[in-house]
Amino acid sequence: MYLEKIESPSDLKQLNAEERGILASEMRNALLEKISVCGGHFGPNFGIVEATIALHYVFDSPEDRIVFDVSHQSYCHKMLTGRKDAYLDPAKYNDVTGYTCPEESEHDIFNVGHTSTSVSLACGLAKARDLMGGTENVIAVIGDGALSGGEALEGLDFAWELHSNLIIIVNDNGMSISDNYGGLYQNLKTLRESNGKAECNIFRSLGFDYCYLKEGNDVEKLIEVFQKVKDIDHPIIVHINTVKGKGYVFAEEDQENYHWKPPFDIETGKNKRTFTNENYDDIVCDFLLDKMKKDKTVVAMAAGVPLTIGFHAEKRKAAGKQFVDVGIAEEHAVAMAAGIAKRGGKPVFATHSSFFQRTYDQISQELCINRCPATLLVRNASVWGMNDVTHLGIFDIPLLSNIPNLVYLGPTNKQEYLAMLEWSIEQQDHPVAIRIPRNGVHYAKDPVDLDYSNLNQYKLCERGSKIAILALGDFFQLGEETSALLEQESGIKPTLVNPRYITGIDVDFLRGLEQEHTIVVTLEDGILSGGFGEKIAAFYGTSGMRVLNYGLKKEFIDRFNPNDILLENRLTASQIVEDLSLLAR
Amino acid sequence: MYLEKIESPSDLKQLNAEERGILASEMRNALLEKISVCGGHFGPNFGIVEATIALHYVFDSPEDRIVFDVSHQSYCHKMLTGRKDAYLDPAKYNDVTGYTCPEESEHDIFNVGHTSTSVSLACGLAKARDLMGGTENVIAVIGDGALSGGEALEGLDFAWELHSNLIIIVNDNGMSISDNYGGLYQNLKTLRESNGKAECNIFRSLGFDYCYLKEGNDVEKLIEVFQKVKDIDHPIIVHINTVKGKGYVFAEEDQENYHWKPPFDIETGKNKRTFTNENYDDIVCDFLLDKMKKDKTVVAMAAGVPLTIGFHAEKRKAAGKQFVDVGIAEEHAVAMAAGIAKRGGKPVFATHSSFFQRTYDQISQELCINRCPATLLVRNASVWGMNDVTHLGIFDIPLLSNIPNLVYLGPTNKQEYLAMLEWSIEQQDHPVAIRIPRNGVHYAKDPVDLDYSNLNQYKLCERGSKIAILALGDFFQLGEETSALLEQESGIKPTLVNPRYITGIDVDFLRGLEQEHTIVVTLEDGILSGGFGEKIAAFYGTSGMRVLNYGLKKEFIDRFNPNDILLENRLTASQIVEDLSLLAR
Repeated sequence: MYLEKIESPSDLKQLNAEERGILASEMRNALLEKISVCGGHFGPNFGIVEATIALHYVFDSPEDRIVFDVSHQSYCHKMLTGRKDAYLDPAKYNDVTGYTCPEESEHDIFNVGHTSTSVSLACGLAKARDLMGGTENVIAVIGDGALSGGEALEGLDFAWELHSNLIIIVNDNGMSISDNYGGLYQNLKTLRESNGKAECNIFRSLGFDYCYLKEGNDVEKLIEVFQKVKDIDHPIIVHINTVKGKGYVFAEEDQENYHWKPPFDIETGKNKRTFTNENYDDIVCDFLLDKMKKDKTVVAMAAGVPLTIGFHAEKRKAAGKQFVDVGIAEEHAVAMAAGIAKRGGKPVFATHSSFFQRTYDQISQELCINRCPATLLVRNASVWGMNDVTHLGIFDIPLLSNIPNLVYLGPTNKQEYLAMLEWSIEQQDHPVAIRIPRNGVHYAKDPVDLDYSNLNQYKLCERGSKIAILALGDFFQLGEETSALLEQESGIKPTLVNPRYITGIDVDFLRGLEQEHTIVVTLEDGILSGGFGEKIAAFYGTSGMRVLNYGLKKEFIDRFNPNDILLENRLTASQIVEDLSLLAR
Repeated sequence: MYLEKIESPSDLKQLNAEERGILASEMRNALLEKISVCGGHFGPNFGIVEATIALHYVFDSPEDRIVFDVSHQSYCHKMLTGRKDAYLDPAKYNDVTGYTCPEESEHDIFNVGHTSTSVSLACGLAKARDLMGGTENVIAVIGDGALSGGEALEGLDFAWELHSNLIIIVNDNGMSISDNYGGLYQNLKTLRESNGKAECNIFRSLGFDYCYLKEGNDVEKLIEVFQKVKDIDHPIIVHINTVKGKGYVFAEEDQENYHWKPPFDIETGKNKRTFTNENYDDIVCDFLLDKMKKDKTVVAMAAGVPLTIGFHAEKRKAAGKQFVDVGIAEEHAVAMAAGIAKRGGKPVFATHSSFFQRTYDQISQELCINRCPATLLVRNASVWGMNDVTHLGIFDIPLLSNIPNLVYLGPTNKQEYLAMLEWSIEQQDHPVAIRIPRNGVHYAKDPVDLDYSNLNQYKLCERGSKIAILALGDFFQLGEETSALLEQESGIKPTLVNPRYITGIDVDFLRGLEQEHTIVVTLEDGILSGGFGEKIAAFYGTSGMRVLNYGLKKEFIDRFNPNDILLENRLTASQIVEDLSLLAR
């Protein structure tokens, strides 16, 4: 086995053509074995095996800088840069992250997880190199799906200005996570079909030199092309045509579901676990499809991740023109939602909490200044969300809740979520965001309100005394648990409150609490800094009320177990009760 | 005079060709007179007189929807849609805003002030129209400068998917606010030089139908082209070549300085007031130029607004390769700064507080997760900043200060600002943002620290008792004033503190205050929601300390007098002292 002997790219450089071919097979086998056990980005990595071998054969990493866009396709790169054991030895499968990570290797330049950043990052590396008199190659590897992101397009537009070495490898597999959307992809198709010869060329129109390689899964041809562009003195696009999921028949045939694949059986391609639990993705998708049938102006919108709200291929088809996937283009999605709402349509745009970070300006300017009644669904907004440092869902409360005019709602159960969504879609006064619970599907014990237009009305759930617990969103169940434990341990029955509105203070309600309470506890599933609890503390700043805010520390966390994080932040019922008993002394 | 008689576009439709020509002259005269008195966006409006006449002659606003990008070029549109008096009658000059404003007229669809949004907004209008069975035209008018923004590029990429009426007028005057940057502008040049015939065409590469008009300041030719595309059944680009500042010789010759022109003398073109006061733009520019001379790795960066940090044409020339203007592309700028820092360069990127809203994700992901030691200078971050609703500088504290790893500094005077900047440029551990004071150039009374690497150390400025005033950034002077007044009126000499670090809590210092103080006052020049003061209130949540937060309400405000806003928010020394005396009772 050649892969076993590769400790660094210099070992790869010793192999001949035949051996490189065998290496590619070995790498695919390793990928297959590991992903079948751990899950992972299947398609992107299977497609880029040969290109990665050729890159490390031709260029001299880490002196030459290779920046992987999104970096979910860097598994092969990791194998060839000293981390093969994490793909060969099941005991070491967890030694590496799923993205480039400078803490792991000098061959990884950046922690990257969001799309469309590689060209700009590479422009910076090249600019600094030129100022400092360096001579290395700077290479960005970007997939076609990431090209539609505004940051990538800004970078591609700017790159011409460098007038020095910059090699951008466009790994074109004709496929984003889901389908590709937008005119740009027609041009890539035209370029593929003309073997790169078409005169009308998006890259050349941006000032780039350009070359095309049809055989993007042929190591030797890739080496030839990379050798030609190595040490080039100006920016160039190397457009290579690869096959997503190449080499595993099930993946080639079902590219969408093999983009990220959970653990599966290698023989059949079937997932090892099937999830039959009720979940909010399916619930909201079915709810929206039903709304659409009754109302032609309802539009569900996604930006490259339609499964965020359960829109599998067949459901997209069912929605027809009432479903729009704009591709990876979150800024456009929010602004377009503003336009739809302004013209009387009813847009519902969903994406991950972490990806809403791209849209602050559009939410503030296009939606909120203009009071366009669009609905935003914020998914994975939780300590139980994604646990890669680049995909954390714990920052959206400070991000969104401080924007004027936005109504950010935190439902605590299924009925409340759907009631809020129904209200939001039908009302015409506010841009509304809804933080989808992430702690499983809970059911309402009491009837939920249907009308949320009287803003910032907190809901009293259990009346008690001395201590009031304001338990926001999917930490409501933690509030219930804490409440029960407190009563059990201390005999104090606290008041339990569902604030519902993340974006506002219920002044009368909070003043009312002062009558029979001396302590207010806030619980929120996100960082405390800039969040909900601090506003409550500030409200009571000059009163005698004591306020304890529970939530997460302001820090980036990576590959964590949510339970550990909850413990660290004293976010368990028993810890909270303990804190309260100390305070009460 | 024809202009006087135009109450709506239907009046314009009655004019013949000769009369339309005269109207154009009248509109230019009105623009000249008004801008010479009030200041305003000179060049963009002078360039688009004819196109606006042609638009309203051919299309039927408000049924047909016209969306102006940035909308700083909508003065002519306002003249033709019932608001001529605001341009003809000096007594009514202030009746209209400088941007489209739905509150003024049904012909204005959105409040717009940031660039690059029109295509996405128009896509939304068109999508809703199609779902609702409408038949109107949707027109986006976008200048060449705005094309480099990621949101515009995302919109242009997506538009093809609509397959229905969408007319995008690219008003190409070969000039952004400053020069245009990026490969795209080479393509526009090629298109202009080939009379639109060049095969390699950025718009066609994105799937657009396309037509070109060389004579973009010829009303009759514009009418002809617009009539051809009216009611078209698919997206089309109408690329028109106009002259920025057309018709006023000084403006045509000095397009950068006439982009936005302060009040000036019509005969000579000279500004009526010259500002000779010391200002931070020139101070920081000279500081950076000096740094650059000594250190080839220092890079000043701008995104379309180089004057933000004083980089006039001659200073850009002096900086040479150490100055980079990426054009309107803030996301790219921040990511590129991360790349520069990672490779050992020393990037300093400056833009307006309001424009940083485009970069949250890049600051969080590329800069902060990766701990790239870049410096961000946040300008106009203040109640004394720009006062259009779309350009407010009062939201950056919640936006930036809740991002982990970022060090956000609030200097209180010139020496402190430059010391912080010097430290930031030279240190290698943190991404740093600096909030440039906006209340004039103040001087330090005591020596300032040169090293800020021991994070979150608040500075005790005056030791007093009972009340401690934490006066952040350019509200420090308000803190001094309040402190003096309080001592004078009540005999209590309060403790005065310069927190310096917006992003952190000085735990020991705050605990220390509990010894001799019962009240802590916080002052910050921005909204309270998600900001600095709330963190102090939360810190003292369970203690006996009473905390009063002073800052602005979370709301969008428009065309305000800062003094009114300060009064409304009780942000004067006398109001604060009054509040304190009530509290002390």
